[in-house]
Amino acid sequence: MHDGVHNVVVVPDSFKGTLSARAVASAMRRGIERAASDSGALVQVNELPFADGGEGTLEAILDAWGTSPRECEATDSLGRPITSSYGISPDGKMGLIEAAQANGLAAVSDVPLRPRQATTRGVGEIVRKALDDGAEQILLTAGGSATTDGGTGMLRQLGMRFLDSEGAELPDGGGALSQLDRIDLTNLDPRAYKITWKIAADVTNPLTGPHGAAAVFGPQKGATPEDVEVLDEGLATLARAAEAAGGKPTEDIPGLGAAGGIAALLHAFFTVELEPGWQMVSEVLGATAIVGEADLVLTGEGRFDSQSIDGKVIYGVRQLTSADTPLVVLAGEVGVTPEDLERSGVTAAFTICRGPSSLKEIAPRTAEYVELAAYQVARIYFHPGLRRGFGTGAR
Amino acid sequence: MHDGVHNVVVVPDSFKGTLSARAVASAMRRGIERAASDSGALVQVNELPFADGGEGTLEAILDAWGTSPRECEATDSLGRPITSSYGISPDGKMGLIEAAQANGLAAVSDVPLRPRQATTRGVGEIVRKALDDGAEQILLTAGGSATTDGGTGMLRQLGMRFLDSEGAELPDGGGALSQLDRIDLTNLDPRAYKITWKIAADVTNPLTGPHGAAAVFGPQKGATPEDVEVLDEGLATLARAAEAAGGKPTEDIPGLGAAGGIAALLHAFFTVELEPGWQMVSEVLGATAIVGEADLVLTGEGRFDSQSIDGKVIYGVRQLTSADTPLVVLAGEVGVTPEDLERSGVTAAFTICRGPSSLKEIAPRTAEYVELAAYQVARIYFHPGLRRGFGTGAR
Repeated sequence: MHDGVHNVVVVPDSFKGTLSARAVASAMRRGIERAASDSGALVQVNELPFADGGEGTLEAILDAWGTSPRECEATDSLGRPITSSYGISPDGKMGLIEAAQANGLAAVSDVPLRPRQATTRGVGEIVRKALDDGAEQILLTAGGSATTDGGTGMLRQLGMRFLDSEGAELPDGGGALSQLDRIDLTNLDPRAYKITWKIAADVTNPLTGPHGAAAVFGPQKGATPEDVEVLDEGLATLARAAEAAGGKPTEDIPGLGAAGGIAALLHAFFTVELEPGWQMVSEVLGATAIVGEADLVLTGEGRFDSQSIDGKVIYGVRQLTSADTPLVVLAGEVGVTPEDLERSGVTAAFTICRGPSSLKEIAPRTAEYVELAAYQVARIYFHPGLRRGFGTGAR
Repeated sequence: MHDGVHNVVVVPDSFKGTLSARAVASAMRRGIERAASDSGALVQVNELPFADGGEGTLEAILDAWGTSPRECEATDSLGRPITSSYGISPDGKMGLIEAAQANGLAAVSDVPLRPRQATTRGVGEIVRKALDDGAEQILLTAGGSATTDGGTGMLRQLGMRFLDSEGAELPDGGGALSQLDRIDLTNLDPRAYKITWKIAADVTNPLTGPHGAAAVFGPQKGATPEDVEVLDEGLATLARAAEAAGGKPTEDIPGLGAAGGIAALLHAFFTVELEPGWQMVSEVLGATAIVGEADLVLTGEGRFDSQSIDGKVIYGVRQLTSADTPLVVLAGEVGVTPEDLERSGVTAAFTICRGPSSLKEIAPRTAEYVELAAYQVARIYFHPGLRRGFGTGAR
């Protein structure tokens, strides 16, 4: 079956704050090719910079598409103007939006959090821009949000109106939603119905209740227990109003609690697919076929720990990798126990460090050290001694 | 040829100042056995704590012999009393002496060096004790000495006398040797002739001249240019006197410049074998057969750098390892370039660190981290995917 050329796929996350996934992949390739050359082995290295729907997703997908980011004037979750990036696929049909660029916690880290006021309006501004560009599908990564407004801010930008019992428009933010009387769809942008919404969300929490968006994620967005109560009641009110306006039920759907309920109204009224971030990225990149056929897979991220095993890039890469293909992780820091490693399905994990050292020393040399670490691993992989004396399936 | 049991040999140096070679070997074995267990592979791990004739050699060999060190009252290179350890093989025939325990630089690090006075007398005291114990062969590791006395101090303990032109005994140390008129063998201990002297020396320098013991190694023992001149003249005088007393020529023999000429008089009068430290250790441990038959060899040391490639433990392990067997180094710090690695014949080298960290954090966890690193490497080694699709000799 094998033509003698080793098929190695490098499919790393970025090393956050240090090196992009593309640069990591490129360094890994260099190390592997050098090791193959040392041992006289033939190798084909496929670079597939990856992401999990979090930071770096836009960049990884734009890299794969070979397109540049587009810019858009928008607002952050507190309504302050920002310039945001988004992507349009080469065929013009897919719009890719990292919601957190507009409604993210990072964008408002300079001021006190205001969980009741925080709004997804800026996300809606980017969505509208992508629709204006002609997108027929919106890919939206939902993680990292500062908002709990059920996506109302976003949908206002598409013409949806949220009215109180006197017919007045509610103010922005989830805190006002308990005053919601009805949703007015009169002016809704018809494109919202026509397109497919694909939401990358890595949680399975429902919209409301003790496991809902406000109760579970509200506190990390600055919500006090009183805020949580108000926001949860607001989302429940929103869900009832959506149904009253002809929408599908939303309260018991796993995943709609993601990002402060950003997908709730989308689900109620439109065609929505909710899936894990790594899976959305994988589909866009066509990763299943590429990774699935590899003889050796290398991945990596800044820190590989027990959290990496659940739903992040390395988890996704494991799902894509054939069970009988070795999968090796290179990371700035390796925090997994042998138990974690065995559970993760990862074959082995190595730091890119070369000895005692500080992050400050390592960071500027990350590309060099990734290359060296990949080189070491590949030298073992390519060693003819490992293929000596044991036939296929000997164990 | 293979019965399905992987034969892994762990043959590390000590991690100097942190963990003995035995403890490193044991940690490696645990990691490998766990990885084999994870993958359902059968493995036999042979522990072979190693040394190169430097620090840790006595311990490694005593470990292999399964014997305890013996104690001996002796003196350091400045004549101060010390308690020294040495070893006798289980059959009682071999005496193992680390010369540096008595004439080493470390023992006199608390005072100014006195290169002209420094003496090998203490080494002779230990040799005499080993002979009294019945040793028929003396294994002497020569590295790390503070002395440049041509072994005169040592041989005085066996009855050799060094006289000036008036027949008076010279004082201790190489500084007096230029006054040497003749060597008196009258009272020489007859055992010195009967036994075999095996000297582990890792240099090929001759006794005298610009590449000799005084010129090359004198300065690191505190010798000024004037001291070097006096010491070199002393060694030349000694060589002439030895020949005059019926000894073999010594001045052009490679290796006799080791340890201030400690082996010069031994070579002149007795049966001496000079060999690299790793080789002596290898012979005593029977390492050639054990390492040569391994499917995978792991070694390690505190710092693996370009120096390790020339004559130290890892160099020795490489000589012992079959060319088609992977050899992996685990080290506290890895300082080799890909060029070094390729030149060394080592397959791959990994730090035991798990990310940015200080030596202070790592040191107390060395055993745990060695085990984890061995575990990672072995998980790659045992991965069935590496033995898939490629027959023996495919490349």
